[in-house]
Amino acid sequence: MSSTERRYVISLGCPDRTGIVAKIAGFLTEFGGWIVEAAYHTDPTTNWFFTRQEVLASSLPFDVRELSARFAGVARELGPRADWRVTDTGERKRAVILVSKEGHCLYDLLGRVASGELDVDVTSVIGNHKDLAGITEAHGIPFHHVPFPVGDPESKAGAFAQLRQLVDGHQPHAIVLARFMQVLPNELCMAWAGRAVNIHHSFLPSFVGARPYHQAHARGVKLVGATCHYVTAELDAGPIIEQDVIRVSHSDSDRDMVRKGRDIEKIVLARGLRWHLEDRVLVHGNRTVVF
Amino acid sequence: MSSTERRYVISLGCPDRTGIVAKIAGFLTEFGGWIVEAAYHTDPTTNWFFTRQEVLASSLPFDVRELSARFAGVARELGPRADWRVTDTGERKRAVILVSKEGHCLYDLLGRVASGELDVDVTSVIGNHKDLAGITEAHGIPFHHVPFPVGDPESKAGAFAQLRQLVDGHQPHAIVLARFMQVLPNELCMAWAGRAVNIHHSFLPSFVGARPYHQAHARGVKLVGATCHYVTAELDAGPIIEQDVIRVSHSDSDRDMVRKGRDIEKIVLARGLRWHLEDRVLVHGNRTVVF
Amino acid sequence: MSSTERRYVISLGCPDRTGIVAKIAGFLTEFGGWIVEAAYHTDPTTNWFFTRQEVLASSLPFDVRELSARFAGVARELGPRADWRVTDTGERKRAVILVSKEGHCLYDLLGRVASGELDVDVTSVIGNHKDLAGITEAHGIPFHHVPFPVGDPESKAGAFAQLRQLVDGHQPHAIVLARFMQVLPNELCMAWAGRAVNIHHSFLPSFVGARPYHQAHARGVKLVGATCHYVTAELDAGPIIEQDVIRVSHSDSDRDMVRKGRDIEKIVLARGLRWHLEDRVLVHGNRTVVF
Amino acid sequence: MSSTERRYVISLGCPDRTGIVAKIAGFLTEFGGWIVEAAYHTDPTTNWFFTRQEVLASSLPFDVRELSARFAGVARELGPRADWRVTDTGERKRAVILVSKEGHCLYDLLGRVASGELDVDVTSVIGNHKDLAGITEAHGIPFHHVPFPVGDPESKAGAFAQLRQLVDGHQPHAIVLARFMQVLPNELCMAWAGRAVNIHHSFLPSFVGARPYHQAHARGVKLVGATCHYVTAELDAGPIIEQDVIRVSHSDSDRDMVRKGRDIEKIVLARGLRWHLEDRVLVHGNRTVVF
Repeated sequence: MSSTERRYVISLGCPDRTGIVAKIAGFLTEFGGWIVEAAYHTDPTTNWFFTRQEVLASSLPFDVRELSARFAGVARELGPRADWRVTDTGERKRAVILVSKEGHCLYDLLGRVASGELDVDVTSVIGNHKDLAGITEAHGIPFHHVPFPVGDPESKAGAFAQLRQLVDGHQPHAIVLARFMQVLPNELCMAWAGRAVNIHHSFLPSFVGARPYHQAHARGVKLVGATCHYVTAELDAGPIIEQDVIRVSHSDSDRDMVRKGRDIEKIVLARGLRWHLEDRVLVHGNRTVVF
Repeated sequence: MSSTERRYVISLGCPDRTGIVAKIAGFLTEFGGWIVEAAYHTDPTTNWFFTRQEVLASSLPFDVRELSARFAGVARELGPRADWRVTDTGERKRAVILVSKEGHCLYDLLGRVASGELDVDVTSVIGNHKDLAGITEAHGIPFHHVPFPVGDPESKAGAFAQLRQLVDGHQPHAIVLARFMQVLPNELCMAWAGRAVNIHHSFLPSFVGARPYHQAHARGVKLVGATCHYVTAELDAGPIIEQDVIRVSHSDSDRDMVRKGRDIEKIVLARGLRWHLEDRVLVHGNRTVVF
Repeated sequence: MSSTERRYVISLGCPDRTGIVAKIAGFLTEFGGWIVEAAYHTDPTTNWFFTRQEVLASSLPFDVRELSARFAGVARELGPRADWRVTDTGERKRAVILVSKEGHCLYDLLGRVASGELDVDVTSVIGNHKDLAGITEAHGIPFHHVPFPVGDPESKAGAFAQLRQLVDGHQPHAIVLARFMQVLPNELCMAWAGRAVNIHHSFLPSFVGARPYHQAHARGVKLVGATCHYVTAELDAGPIIEQDVIRVSHSDSDRDMVRKGRDIEKIVLARGLRWHLEDRVLVHGNRTVVF
Repeated sequence: MSSTERRYVISLGCPDRTGIVAKIAGFLTEFGGWIVEAAYHTDPTTNWFFTRQEVLASSLPFDVRELSARFAGVARELGPRADWRVTDTGERKRAVILVSKEGHCLYDLLGRVASGELDVDVTSVIGNHKDLAGITEAHGIPFHHVPFPVGDPESKAGAFAQLRQLVDGHQPHAIVLARFMQVLPNELCMAWAGRAVNIHHSFLPSFVGARPYHQAHARGVKLVGATCHYVTAELDAGPIIEQDVIRVSHSDSDRDMVRKGRDIEKIVLARGLRWHLEDRVLVHGNRTVVF
């Protein structure tokens, strides 16, 4: 078995009760399904059950469509609130990356894709500035410039409409806000719910909003962090996928904090995006389970 | 459901094949077993399957003895190499702690037990020096002094025999070498296999043997570490349960490294011991799965 | 030169200008002072200069009193806002520890003192509950019980008055709030300014106030932290001495977060207290320089 | 004062004695030198003194050449073994990067240079394979292909001669082995001593030599690391500049370890190279002081 052999990924959340594991495992076993990775979790505060399973595609006599249809029957027995998804690692995922002027996250993501580490098709990069067109095109990816005029609500609405059209044309599995400095309007948060992945340059909930490193410097903290989260209507308050921190000291100016923080932003975004693309992130309320 | 409600813990390792999950889950579901925590892993290099499951004791119509007897039938179907265990969180575990002169790990463990964080009955502390008798007895635990004469193999063999007798009298689930500075003879390694938990004061496999912090200082490393592992006949080469590191710099003398390293030793030992006592550590060959 | 040889520690903050290093070094060299550790920092945002220097006591022809008197002359030339201190590592520091019911920080500190790692004289432990009297007295340290009646401002004021008297009687260099669950009134914050060291069980400024682990669990963060800071009148807003974090996941209940966080609380408090006792922490505004 | 204002950097190592700080500070003060960053360290095991100081160029009436000439007089008084250097942040540093097939470190370094984070002129990239020519040239940097025939010592010697010529033509301040998979012959180690910076993909001294992640997987370690060090004749044994680690578990295959380790390799190499280029690394024996 190669670690890159094609797999079907089943993920499910539902109210907890006895027999769920047996039901799913029994269903898969009936058809010879070989489970190569399985994770379970029950949240005792909400009494909610979560699972994610990877099954070798070659071990089942189905394609992903038929597996989904049959699994729907299993899920139906788990009650009307069961929330599930079946995906196929053989179908390549698509991502659109939104950027502004700062390039460190984009450089990092493109390098990971180019070196085969991140398995995704970046269909386009969209920037509200042109600064990052060159590196994008050097990687053979189309770059679109959508300017966002400052202080003009009407033009801004037009820019978001254009952005939406450019993004939705690709039907992306992930819309990555790689230090995109515009706050998405509610309708885009709704339309892209569960797919818009942002990197915020602080250890949330500390330092929500603008210039978090400068806030951090002013408060005199000894660590700075980064948070990868799903975008929701409330600014910087969506479900957290991943966080990490790096040590700073009195000898670090706010510029130094910006520089050190970038290393964490890149890693945290790359991890969060990878897990999202591998269907490892299950959202329930405002919290995530990451399998 | 309280997080401290009584549970049965089933852990199992066996050659991988389809249907194992279904078989175990089906068995539990048949009797109404409520799985509150479940973990699975397949090692693709050895094709070995591992699982650990916690089932609410009150959900099954069995006591632990009958569960074991019935589970033996399930395990038999998984082949002759299946290695399994069923335990009951309602039966309190016992530990014996072996020490020498350095007290930081002992102070730490006793504090964790006294504050209810580590749920184990420390039946005795045995030292080859008397330095730590006071603190042990202040916690209401008997202390035994077993001197190990330097450079006298015969007396040393006698000391080990006495040590063994003192330890085995308690039938402990864990024999904790909390900076015990004597190398166990092979026969004790064999007798206590899978139960003797050591803390080594380096990030193994770096700096095996004596004075690892001084070796680390001489090599000029920028991090020092600690390793919690099961004791085997080969020195500092047993299966690793947990490791961690802490940053040091040129300004740290070897004394400073010793001091900083202690914080990591304490944490790594406490984590490893907790996981061992909760039956979370499955050993296969020289590697561990920690669920 | 032994690393424990007696030293004088000079620390100073003043407006930056040229020649400060030369002035101090010249003064010390004139009398043969052997500097064994020296650190300098200039904060470019406030244009403030900081230094801390350790000089071998035996290399100078002075006792600490005369060194102070002579250094006052040097400091005077650095302007009226220069803030400095000279201490003698040969004079043992005193600490009072304030506790409530939770013992993990107290166990940890007492273990460090007993094993010689933390060089301080704990003159007494004061608790608003009696739970930790036993372990305190087992270490040969007097324990005082000062009850804080709930919901009765007048009795509470009386309790704080009693607390103050008990503390001030020792003239301690450090008043350690080791999970002491009472908010100090302003007058005590003032009286103990720069000496009252608190451990807060979150990565400040996240989760100020009560039950931070429960707040952290509800927000779904992926790391929990602890912060050691000087106590000021504004709750949990004083100058930060040290912070650290530990990883948590969806599988950690709020109880698990409490347990994991304790390991970080203990380490962060011990580090912060050590640095405070070694005169390594220089406060300027609401930020610290830690040399 | 801007944090990017031009500075002279003085670094020095010499046997410790009293008065060194005063001598250097006195020299600088005499000419109005404004020290904006200063660090000192004495290694008690070797009794060696180290310092690094940044002085605002505009505060001195000298150019760097005259400062060097005058500082030589100061250093002479510190004895014949004093080892010192004066550099000028106004003179841009040059680096040559050596690569093989794996691109993650190269992508990372080029991204850091392009985004202005790493202030160095990459004069060329040299590879023993052509795989990374495209990304190099997309950044406007010349790429040279120098094939290293396997198993033919004579051709290999020729390849190293060609490599040396290509490198030495740039008189680089840093020769960066960014996962360059060839072991440098002794003569190149000598010629490039103190300038050849390697990234090794393990936490040295663990797992010297080939395929360290596979060694780590086989040993069952719980953390993998990376080490940035100066190249010396003994393989993977040169002075360590920086190290870091990342957590792995039983669920990580050796491929996963390779992927996770890359994030650490990139960060550790970038940090080590930055410190080298800023003249922050002082080597003494086989250890480094990093100011």
